[in-house]
Amino acid sequence: MPELRKDPVSGGWIIVTTERGKLPSEFGTVTDQRKGGPCPFCEGHEDETPPEIAAYRDDGQPNGPGWSVRTVPNKSAVLKVEGELDRRGDGLYDVMNGIGAHEIVIESPDHDADLSTLPLEQLSLAIRMHRDRSLDLRKDKRLRYLQVFRNHGEAAGATMEHPHSQIIALPITPRWLKEELVSAKAHFEFKERCLFCDIMWQELSDHVRIVYENRAFVCFVPFASKSPFEVWALPKRHDCDFGTIDDEEIEQMARALKSVTGALSRGLHDPPYNFIIHSAPFRDERPGYWKTIDKDFHWHIEIIPRLTQMAGFEWGTGFYLNPTPPEQSAQYLREEME
Amino acid sequence: MPELRKDPVSGGWIIVTTERGKLPSEFGTVTDQRKGGPCPFCEGHEDETPPEIAAYRDDGQPNGPGWSVRTVPNKSAVLKVEGELDRRGDGLYDVMNGIGAHEIVIESPDHDADLSTLPLEQLSLAIRMHRDRSLDLRKDKRLRYLQVFRNHGEAAGATMEHPHSQIIALPITPRWLKEELVSAKAHFEFKERCLFCDIMWQELSDHVRIVYENRAFVCFVPFASKSPFEVWALPKRHDCDFGTIDDEEIEQMARALKSVTGALSRGLHDPPYNFIIHSAPFRDERPGYWKTIDKDFHWHIEIIPRLTQMAGFEWGTGFYLNPTPPEQSAQYLREEME
Repeated sequence: MPELRKDPVSGGWIIVTTERGKLPSEFGTVTDQRKGGPCPFCEGHEDETPPEIAAYRDDGQPNGPGWSVRTVPNKSAVLKVEGELDRRGDGLYDVMNGIGAHEIVIESPDHDADLSTLPLEQLSLAIRMHRDRSLDLRKDKRLRYLQVFRNHGEAAGATMEHPHSQIIALPITPRWLKEELVSAKAHFEFKERCLFCDIMWQELSDHVRIVYENRAFVCFVPFASKSPFEVWALPKRHDCDFGTIDDEEIEQMARALKSVTGALSRGLHDPPYNFIIHSAPFRDERPGYWKTIDKDFHWHIEIIPRLTQMAGFEWGTGFYLNPTPPEQSAQYLREEME
Repeated sequence: MPELRKDPVSGGWIIVTTERGKLPSEFGTVTDQRKGGPCPFCEGHEDETPPEIAAYRDDGQPNGPGWSVRTVPNKSAVLKVEGELDRRGDGLYDVMNGIGAHEIVIESPDHDADLSTLPLEQLSLAIRMHRDRSLDLRKDKRLRYLQVFRNHGEAAGATMEHPHSQIIALPITPRWLKEELVSAKAHFEFKERCLFCDIMWQELSDHVRIVYENRAFVCFVPFASKSPFEVWALPKRHDCDFGTIDDEEIEQMARALKSVTGALSRGLHDPPYNFIIHSAPFRDERPGYWKTIDKDFHWHIEIIPRLTQMAGFEWGTGFYLNPTPPEQSAQYLREEME
């Protein structure tokens, strides 16, 4: 059973293997990303993954061909679904069992597709799967937070080429999301307005960092981007919960993602990037517990190209060095928009 | 003039170029780490660096040969010493001029040396230089925090092979240090004991994560390590300020660093790592402003091997995945100790 351990100094958590650990000799070996299909995520290879949790299919049987999007447990899951949380102390340290979900969303049967090349309808189906998994997983009352993410390219942590994203559901609200909740709450208390809505209106008014806009989403390079060419996509409708996205918004989100990742891919020669969705934690059963935090928050998407390295200064401080002014990043991306 | 910009959502800061930014075509090019000496940091090549800020030398003139440790401004400094801070708003955003210091400490005239192979006396001189620069830079009342760090290996961000460390002095207390100050303060208020002293005594008592101990320092793999084989070194004497280290402690610190980096190098084939010193921010002029925070804090060293990647999950949550139990990491390192 993996463990969740809390660092009493930073307040951050880690997930750590407690069984046979990775040996020194196993680090730094050549990555085993498989080039070219077919792979275990390809149609016709369903028996090479654990049995599916969910799938959209026009025909065929579960765990056979005929699907358009398919969700399976991660074979190397970092958390386990079965068991008790068992929060406990170890002297002054905090520890609990590594309970949670770790799922793979195979976004298309097509091995060679990508966010920027998938047909809109297919990309919409993948986003619908993210929403549906979020709505399903929150029924498990042990879970507090769900992280949808996507690693594109080896330097961003991808180990499979086939288009896929991942979902990790956690029994605690992670530190960085908490920081965002605190900022949003402080801003709301001071201004009686949403921090993210305010950012959106300032960006639309300044118009120097905007890269894309449609009926439901505004995409821009954030004022204090951690990385060159980083893009945030904010939904125009204020809601703390990604799970409330409707079918029309899903289609607009697909258009936004396709445009932004297309511009990144053309302008920066298919750079490695991470894609994350930040959404409010699941509501706690205790009345009012999350509610005051929730309503101030605004779910959103971050796309972070991995073009710079974290070195000692960044590890020591939490500062990021950005060698490209966000206004310049935005201008390049606008010029690459189709 | 570079800018410091604050992300209103995470509360973190970035340092951003505002002049000509790095172009898309300039990312992902092959790193230009120069292999083999002589390089601009080698003895006899003093005219290839900016004029020195400080040096220890037995003979010779400033900016000529004869030195043992030499501090020069970073040619590609991310912050500038000259100018006013000019804190200001930009709509709802916070921004200030990129005022600060960015120095290179050349730790030895010997191009091919490293922390684990430098003679103890030479390593002690390098640490003394860190202390002396800290004592000197704090005289500048615009500066609040000083980060000593070292990038070893290209994957850890090193661009020069010659043994060197860096110092960045900042006009604000960085986010991650603030988090540590808050944790230390909360623990002290609850227990009336130092968090770090408590950690040290628990580690010495459990003895499963200890890797090295001498008269002045305890080195261990932290309970919730971000990375496999991460090591923290805590000074036994409680003090918030690295600047108070005395000559005998410097010699003990050199012994500890040499042993730990030697074990890492032997056990993991010279892995890339980042080395950072966390010390309390400089005292503010306003009476009592920092003092209540300071005294609870305990300066310390973190050595973070760069063996795993940050991917979407880590960027989204601030969680780290550690595939090697800290107890196992400690055992390997103990076995590699000489």
